[in-house]
Amino acid sequence: MQTNIEESIKLYGKKIDDLLIEIIPPDRDDYLSEPIWHHLRTGGKRIRPAICLITCKELGGNPDEALYFALAIEILHNMFLLHDDIEDEDTMRRDQPTVWVKYGIANAVNSGDYLLARAYHCILISPIPSEKKLKLLEIFTLTYEKTVEGQALDINARGATDYTVEKYLELVRLKTGYYLACGMVGGAVASGNADETIDKIWNLGKLMGPAFQIKDDLIDLTVGKGRGGVIGSDIKEGKASFLYAYTSELANSGDKASLIEIMTKQRDETTDDDVKHVLNIYNRYGAIDHAQKYADDLIKQTYDIIDQIPTDNKAVFRDIANFMSQRMT
Amino acid sequence: MQTNIEESIKLYGKKIDDLLIEIIPPDRDDYLSEPIWHHLRTGGKRIRPAICLITCKELGGNPDEALYFALAIEILHNMFLLHDDIEDEDTMRRDQPTVWVKYGIANAVNSGDYLLARAYHCILISPIPSEKKLKLLEIFTLTYEKTVEGQALDINARGATDYTVEKYLELVRLKTGYYLACGMVGGAVASGNADETIDKIWNLGKLMGPAFQIKDDLIDLTVGKGRGGVIGSDIKEGKASFLYAYTSELANSGDKASLIEIMTKQRDETTDDDVKHVLNIYNRYGAIDHAQKYADDLIKQTYDIIDQIPTDNKAVFRDIANFMSQRMT
Repeated sequence: MQTNIEESIKLYGKKIDDLLIEIIPPDRDDYLSEPIWHHLRTGGKRIRPAICLITCKELGGNPDEALYFALAIEILHNMFLLHDDIEDEDTMRRDQPTVWVKYGIANAVNSGDYLLARAYHCILISPIPSEKKLKLLEIFTLTYEKTVEGQALDINARGATDYTVEKYLELVRLKTGYYLACGMVGGAVASGNADETIDKIWNLGKLMGPAFQIKDDLIDLTVGKGRGGVIGSDIKEGKASFLYAYTSELANSGDKASLIEIMTKQRDETTDDDVKHVLNIYNRYGAIDHAQKYADDLIKQTYDIIDQIPTDNKAVFRDIANFMSQRMT
Repeated sequence: MQTNIEESIKLYGKKIDDLLIEIIPPDRDDYLSEPIWHHLRTGGKRIRPAICLITCKELGGNPDEALYFALAIEILHNMFLLHDDIEDEDTMRRDQPTVWVKYGIANAVNSGDYLLARAYHCILISPIPSEKKLKLLEIFTLTYEKTVEGQALDINARGATDYTVEKYLELVRLKTGYYLACGMVGGAVASGNADETIDKIWNLGKLMGPAFQIKDDLIDLTVGKGRGGVIGSDIKEGKASFLYAYTSELANSGDKASLIEIMTKQRDETTDDDVKHVLNIYNRYGAIDHAQKYADDLIKQTYDIIDQIPTDNKAVFRDIANFMSQRMT
């Protein structure tokens, strides 16, 4: 059976957007609507919530039962963007000043807090039985908590000099793994499937997290991130990528010293030559090839799990795995 | 029947502290334990959770059923302190540098987020039936949301030139009202009382919020806040107190201009003479007397509600109302 993930995302995206306006009214005079909608209007493709609804449907459930949870995931995602932009001192997002730049840190922290309250509210008013609702609240809280734990590692890993692939994977498992799995798991819970299937969906998501993140790290070095496809933003930011982790472990002392020197430079002090130099070091140790293979192997592992999921339409889940391990903004 | 609120608080405080250590282990190497416990070790009397447990017991319930919810309230309280200190740019709390000063804004925002995750986790693992648990989650989420809404008003009211008593009361109802009521309401829910009683407890809390806040505003002008009992910290900070709101509405244009000029000055530019000048204006319009009477009247109203609560021990609730309308840190 063939599927078209992008079409489903578009279809469900409309439902999500309608409910979003209901849950977070855009025009309230409360010093929250304005900063939040300044951020929400910058876009977002509603991929996470759509995948929640697709999963629910493909596992035999009614997507309307997962709709409020799906939106909660989308709200959580945006709450993290608001707080992460403060924490990472990012001044621009999708060509607009970030909320903390435009409305101040106080309003940005508080607006993020408000989003989280509305995400919980959204799950609490879901039209589903109590036991399912409690399960969704547990999944959501676990995901929220683990992502924050991952963010704590991330904040404090910038410029780390003793970085390893193991540390990288731990960070990514926490910061991205639960987060990517959460929507699918919620869809599975809403569909009423057995715990055994739900566990498989968790495992699926936990493999997709690192796969997505490693691919994202590679994109920075191949087609580039952001406008104009500038190569090496992660290097300029000193982001501890898979490439950096892998090379740090293998490099001789001279190369390692070079790497650390460049990665710990301030963003605006890192030159294009510095970026090229780091790329050369990565290539010298075969890091880019290794990262590609590592991510592909993770995707292969997700296929093995998908084979065990009780659905006739395994192609949808393979498409989701492929789609989510590609670039997602 | 005589009661001793302070003794009950001490007794229950121990239970709360033991569970707190279980829910937020102090010694994890995760960049979260350290900033959070730096903050938690600065003290706190566990008044809010204790009042939750007292309410549960006095309404015929088993306090152990409310214990996890009580701790969640305490964790929420501390989450707000962490984020508020960032938002208000407060550098010291109980003689210690605030978390954002010691560990940076990124870790402080993220540590607050983590506390909230653990608060929800704490309610989710409560040993109580599902329906009660969902009710507690609803109360908690509503309180969290309304407090954030109040904080939004508060952040943006600093230095307001068109302030009124109505705006003040709206802010306080949101920022303090739900928050003070929440513990008692949770205790009532855990006790299994009817919705009618729970509504009365909500109303009780909603009266205590402004009563507490107005008394707190008065304390700043009588015995003083913080170390050494310095008078007029709120004036130096430009905080829109009940006194400021009331006088703003009544003052002639000359007095109003003086008030606004002093209240919008930077904290370190406000002199002791400025503070005296504002106090004189407040006295000229009888603001301090009026505030005292207004708060006393609110307390009287709480007594009327307490008379309708189904308990033989109304004295406990009167004590709580008096205790909570006094200074609480």
